[in-house]
Amino acid sequence: MDKHLEHAGIHQNFIFETVVTYVGNGYHSHVGTFIAPMSGTYVFSATLVSFYHVSAHAQFVKNGQAVTTMYVSGAEAGYDTTSQTIVLQLQKGDDVTVQNSDTDKSFYGGSHSTFSGFLLFEDFSSPSVVGK
Amino acid sequence: MDKHLEHAGIHQNFIFETVVTYVGNGYHSHVGTFIAPMSGTYVFSATLVSFYHVSAHAQFVKNGQAVTTMYVSGAEAGYDTTSQTIVLQLQKGDDVTVQNSDTDKSFYGGSHSTFSGFLLFEDFSSPSVVGK
Amino acid sequence: MDKHLEHAGIHQNFIFETVVTYVGNGYHSHVGTFIAPMSGTYVFSATLVSFYHVSAHAQFVKNGQAVTTMYVSGAEAGYDTTSQTIVLQLQKGDDVTVQNSDTDKSFYGGSHSTFSGFLLFEDFSSPSVVGK
Repeated sequence: MDKHLEHAGIHQNFIFETVVTYVGNGYHSHVGTFIAPMSGTYVFSATLVSFYHVSAHAQFVKNGQAVTTMYVSGAEAGYDTTSQTIVLQLQKGDDVTVQNSDTDKSFYGGSHSTFSGFLLFEDFSSPSVVGK
Repeated sequence: MDKHLEHAGIHQNFIFETVVTYVGNGYHSHVGTFIAPMSGTYVFSATLVSFYHVSAHAQFVKNGQAVTTMYVSGAEAGYDTTSQTIVLQLQKGDDVTVQNSDTDKSFYGGSHSTFSGFLLFEDFSSPSVVGK
Repeated sequence: MDKHLEHAGIHQNFIFETVVTYVGNGYHSHVGTFIAPMSGTYVFSATLVSFYHVSAHAQFVKNGQAVTTMYVSGAEAGYDTTSQTIVLQLQKGDDVTVQNSDTDKSFYGGSHSTFSGFLLFEDFSSPSVVGK
């Protein structure tokens, strides 16, 4: 994430411009959303850094549903870093984002906050793959 | 982890009820233990969150032997998050847990503390796979 | 990392002696450098822990170029842990290190600070693999 995410509203997406990631063509960096190009098992990892003396929540969201919660505890810690790595089974077209989940919060960018992901196994039993 | 882990004793397992993970049928959530269903190379990642103003140690444990150490520094930081991602070669039947390693410590649940894992490569040269 | 990294200079490598990792024969622990044994897509994860009341920066470095930034905020937090998981496409012979990036900083060892990595996909289209 090159730019800081400042004064973010609830459910606002993180936009990770720096793609040090391997998610095929699935990561749409203008909106900060990963859309699964095929059905399968995917691994995602995010690292978020707080603004100085700011505490804030964020979450992995799949198709609009929160999957996990992340918390940066900058209020007392100065700057705080949190990371989370998750494994998700996705159908083709499912979307995954990292969203701020509090009102008016800011996070640190500048290559400190990162998002990575990869396809682990393609699901060949899915109708979207086996077409006949 | 839906419930907080409160007043845990030494070597008490973390119980991750929320399985946002892909470890086949290997994760036995009633005891908090992963048992390898086949020999191979596995990846595990855990994120732990401290209670407010509590510092505590935890560890990845393979067959009863500590592999790494994790530390949440909540005493001064308020809430603190720690994550660790490791790669382990397991024989069929090996078990992997995340354990508290101090006396009477508590950790935060509520989807903040997560455990994920996946089989990276099956080991076809293992006697348990090649049966003849 | 068994030993602490003390008074490290700028661009000094972290030396992870404890190899709880699977990076083939690619990790050269005497210098703390991973050298890709074949072209492909690799996943790396590092967990770093601060000294008590020390804040410091570190970075993943590919062929001498910084890829991401990590920050431990020990100054106010006591001890602070930071983790980052990244995915990189490497050519055979590319090197990846984790380096301290400030002057005279120290990090905590003793199995708290870990490095792991694995080959996700071999790139069979690479000239180094298809030799004809």
